Amino acid sequence: MDQGNEEMDVKTRLKEMSAELDGPIKSYIDDERPSNLIEACRQYPYAGGKRMRPSMVVAACRAVGGDASKAVPLAVAIEYIHNFTLVHDDLMDGDEKRRGMTTSHILYGMPTAILAGDALFAKAFDIISDLDIPSDAMRKVLKTVSVAVWDLARGQQMDVNNENSGTVSMEDYIETIRLKTSVLFAAGAAGGAIIGGADDSTVKAVHEYAMNLGVAFQMYDDILGIYGDPEKTGKSAGNDIRKGKNTVMVCHARDTIKDENVLNEFMSVFGKLDATDSEIEKARRILKESGSYDYAIEMAEKYTKDAISRLDCLKDSDDKEFMKALAEYSMSRDV
Amino acid sequence: MDQGNEEMDVKTRLKEMSAELDGPIKSYIDDERPSNLIEACRQYPYAGGKRMRPSMVVAACRAVGGDASKAVPLAVAIEYIHNFTLVHDDLMDGDEKRRGMTTSHILYGMPTAILAGDALFAKAFDIISDLDIPSDAMRKVLKTVSVAVWDLARGQQMDVNNENSGTVSMEDYIETIRLKTSVLFAAGAAGGAIIGGADDSTVKAVHEYAMNLGVAFQMYDDILGIYGDPEKTGKSAGNDIRKGKNTVMVCHARDTIKDENVLNEFMSVFGKLDATDSEIEKARRILKESGSYDYAIEMAEKYTKDAISRLDCLKDSDDKEFMKALAEYSMSRDV
Repeated sequence: MDQGNEEMDVKTRLKEMSAELDGPIKSYIDDERPSNLIEACRQYPYAGGKRMRPSMVVAACRAVGGDASKAVPLAVAIEYIHNFTLVHDDLMDGDEKRRGMTTSHILYGMPTAILAGDALFAKAFDIISDLDIPSDAMRKVLKTVSVAVWDLARGQQMDVNNENSGTVSMEDYIETIRLKTSVLFAAGAAGGAIIGGADDSTVKAVHEYAMNLGVAFQMYDDILGIYGDPEKTGKSAGNDIRKGKNTVMVCHARDTIKDENVLNEFMSVFGKLDATDSEIEKARRILKESGSYDYAIEMAEKYTKDAISRLDCLKDSDDKEFMKALAEYSMSRDV
Repeated sequence: MDQGNEEMDVKTRLKEMSAELDGPIKSYIDDERPSNLIEACRQYPYAGGKRMRPSMVVAACRAVGGDASKAVPLAVAIEYIHNFTLVHDDLMDGDEKRRGMTTSHILYGMPTAILAGDALFAKAFDIISDLDIPSDAMRKVLKTVSVAVWDLARGQQMDVNNENSGTVSMEDYIETIRLKTSVLFAAGAAGGAIIGGADDSTVKAVHEYAMNLGVAFQMYDDILGIYGDPEKTGKSAGNDIRKGKNTVMVCHARDTIKDENVLNEFMSVFGKLDATDSEIEKARRILKESGSYDYAIEMAEKYTKDAISRLDCLKDSDDKEFMKALAEYSMSRDV
């Protein structure tokens, strides 16, 4: 099977799973008072998206031989947690748009955006308390997810700190994306495996799979933020350069470029909010010539391979293949 | 025992319990990265306060015959949740001071205040997952607390909506304070009773005790916000009138004052941010003359009595007495 077909397959499968999860995702937020908070809670999770995280929860459960229907509520909870972090993120970043949609704090105001995030977070744990599995297993899921959200907040703070910091080491960059991106993927996948009845070593393997996948996913996201097609990503081209976002490529460029003039040329555009398109183009070219782009691709490939190898302990199944394909997809997508 | 002694006793007891809980409250947030988030997480819970909520958790556990040491972690979790809501509240309200302390968003910036709140919330659920009780009981605690935080967000949103609304009915006022204040007291007390091994009807009684106590507490808080001694409350006198905060007194005044001139006189000061001290004094006098102050006191007394009556099902004990005294205290305190 060539890469093109494989990618199409995983996209099709993701769409199918996303469609299956759509109903459940829209079934946990009842019509209660006050209506503006309820609307704000629904806005992000109801808007769709790739639904990679909840799909992974269900796939992991089935891949270890479990009953997928029991994992669906956790899939919803993980999606709510992901969306709660997006609502708060958009407010912190002052972003007015997310994939063409007006962001929560712009639409509903700052207090409601804060409360909608908090409420989605609470609802996720309410859903976890109702999981139809033995209470000992539920306790393990709760532990995994609550630690993940703690780590996630740490990762987001490190991200904020990195933006305000001149230089970020490669080590710090990777630690940041492990915390801000990987841990929630990993909690979802591990939670799915726990619900599926996997033993501790299998749960750990699935957790590591998703940790590595998350790093590859975020590295590729950073590549898309600089080289992606704005039509597809919904972000203006080179935005991450204008914002001065520290990525694997920027860390590599700083460590690698020996010619001071070239490095200064790059740094004069990096973080320049009003950089022209031709300046952005120049910065992009420098990152390619320094080998930083290739390095980022290599690194993302390495993490993807690492992710896939963790699944060796699972019996062959459609869901195992889907999980492998998800890892490949996390660095072949165009959005 | 006269009221004076009783009050002194409950204050002494609260201080003792607060001192006992101080160590545990300061033991769950490790030195991790990034240090600015960890500092922000510690700021509010480490600053002290009356610690009524965690004390109630421990007292409820012991009052049903349980081992208090098993309830201490939940006491910490409830205190963290309370503090997470305070951090987010201060940001939403734009308040720069809380009891003389610079608020989180002023000290650490908006993004860190949001993340510190989120992180404290996550830590609370992590602590719950580690409770040293059977997993079935832990599941009940989790359910109670997660629903409470969902309701709390609804109550805070209703409070925000009320502030932007001209008139608020007495019914809406009470529903708002049940959600924004009572539910967390109730989740803590009920959680303590669950940990103590109480049966469902006892847990329910303890829950209702704290719901009623919470309403009395908030009504009295609203009275202090208008008639309290600024030296003791740490808020400027009559602040709640300047802010146009809808309280039981304001609801009553609107329903009761027949003389349009008097009502207009009150409304001309209510919500006037730059009202002079003599205007505030006039508004205060109108609320006394209309019987609104007396009505608020009567209502708070009614809820206090209701709270205490729910404890009839408990065997007599020091902790039962303390819980009764806490209910009395919630409307006799000066801060």
